[in-house]
Amino acid sequence: MRLRPTDLLILFAVGAAGGLIGDAGNVQSGATRYIDDSAPFVWESPLWFPALVGAATVAIGVVRLWLGAPRPGFDARIGVAAFASVVAIYSVTSVAGDDGTPAVALVVSLGVLVACAFADRPGLICGVAAAVIGPPVEIAIVELDLSEYADSHDSLFGVGLWLPGLYLAFGVAAARIAELLVARRTG
Amino acid sequence: MRLRPTDLLILFAVGAAGGLIGDAGNVQSGATRYIDDSAPFVWESPLWFPALVGAATVAIGVVRLWLGAPRPGFDARIGVAAFASVVAIYSVTSVAGDDGTPAVALVVSLGVLVACAFADRPGLICGVAAAVIGPPVEIAIVELDLSEYADSHDSLFGVGLWLPGLYLAFGVAAARIAELLVARRTG
Amino acid sequence: MRLRPTDLLILFAVGAAGGLIGDAGNVQSGATRYIDDSAPFVWESPLWFPALVGAATVAIGVVRLWLGAPRPGFDARIGVAAFASVVAIYSVTSVAGDDGTPAVALVVSLGVLVACAFADRPGLICGVAAAVIGPPVEIAIVELDLSEYADSHDSLFGVGLWLPGLYLAFGVAAARIAELLVARRTG
Repeated sequence: MRLRPTDLLILFAVGAAGGLIGDAGNVQSGATRYIDDSAPFVWESPLWFPALVGAATVAIGVVRLWLGAPRPGFDARIGVAAFASVVAIYSVTSVAGDDGTPAVALVVSLGVLVACAFADRPGLICGVAAAVIGPPVEIAIVELDLSEYADSHDSLFGVGLWLPGLYLAFGVAAARIAELLVARRTG
Repeated sequence: MRLRPTDLLILFAVGAAGGLIGDAGNVQSGATRYIDDSAPFVWESPLWFPALVGAATVAIGVVRLWLGAPRPGFDARIGVAAFASVVAIYSVTSVAGDDGTPAVALVVSLGVLVACAFADRPGLICGVAAAVIGPPVEIAIVELDLSEYADSHDSLFGVGLWLPGLYLAFGVAAARIAELLVARRTG
Repeated sequence: MRLRPTDLLILFAVGAAGGLIGDAGNVQSGATRYIDDSAPFVWESPLWFPALVGAATVAIGVVRLWLGAPRPGFDARIGVAAFASVVAIYSVTSVAGDDGTPAVALVVSLGVLVACAFADRPGLICGVAAAVIGPPVEIAIVELDLSEYADSHDSLFGVGLWLPGLYLAFGVAAARIAELLVARRTG
């Protein structure tokens, strides 16, 4: 009932890939901008960004299995759908144009729908934890002058007010994928 | 198999909350505007607006149970997902920017998806009834000079052409939540 | 286990209807424009466009049943939801405003979600085949000077870069509806 090295690698790769796609959207739409360009860039992101998202995905997976046994039953479609849901919501943060009430209500309700679709109780804890911890980390990154959010996307102490909704979906999806990686072996 | 006073209160509160969130989005995006400001305002809405939506939610719940027995089985996630779906669609009416064909097709197909996901036959009747009754009520509100829709959102006799899709989702979700309130006790 | 003439007619009508709704959105939003107006128009589309989409829907249905037995169990809601999903995604291609990374990531992830929700293995093959064959056909239509995509929507050799995501959803939905048409009789 534990994650093996290959599982951790998969979680890292999945998180890094989702982070790269979503971040490219945020940068290209002008929602966010990187100020510090001392690190090498991958697509639109400095190397440390996908690394951070990948590491966070691994951490959530470990926490999920520490919180309780994964649900049995493996279906790759569930994991793919969880991943695609987060990429879709991430893209909505770019398409919606700002972090006013409509965009925030949309992103948060989509995050809640992802939680209803994929989370058990431990998964929900992972989602809420991500929603609580993620935004302060992004605020710190902005405070360190590594990146900034556009004026239209900075209502939450300098970062997007829709971030909690996006992180909720991210935490729930990472937890669900970790469950599936174990269920793949144990049936 | 009947709604108790607490159930009615929950339906009212859930409807009023969803109405407030969605209406704040419509007002902030400029889709709608309140002309009469004689009533006290809550967030962006005059007090009578969430009261109307709450009362309509109660009415739909009562009609749902009058139309047939609720489905057994209680899962809070279903009710939360139904609520979040309506808030998401309401927000889409603000984000989409107008009530041209793309926005209307998007909102109506999302309303149909909500009906497919949550409605049984009586629930579908509730949704269709809401889609038929809701827009004329909004037209009356506009005719009474209490509020108005922006020029870009007034193709249905002065109100948003996407309203039937939104009300369909609203009616279905209110009916589903009423079912769950009964199933919570009866199992 | 085969499609009857009535089934083919239903597939054609469903495809033509979806094509008309989605294409009206693309034309009205300015994403696409018809250059040749020698054919009679239906709504915003020349007659040959819904005919092409209807024929493609029939072809996908035939291929789906040739690839394997349809899943048993008939529920009209599944077919309606599959249809509404494609119309919703088609509308998103109009609402999103361009075919930059956010719009493409959104449309492709929604297409993947539709595949996860509705496809079995043969259905997925239908979806991938549509995603591979559809865009070159549209490129040919543009090359023939029958229509054109706006500059903001022409990143894929003159057509929308989101087209593969839309065609994936289309192929999966057409296959699922074909399955249901057979299951309606065989139970």
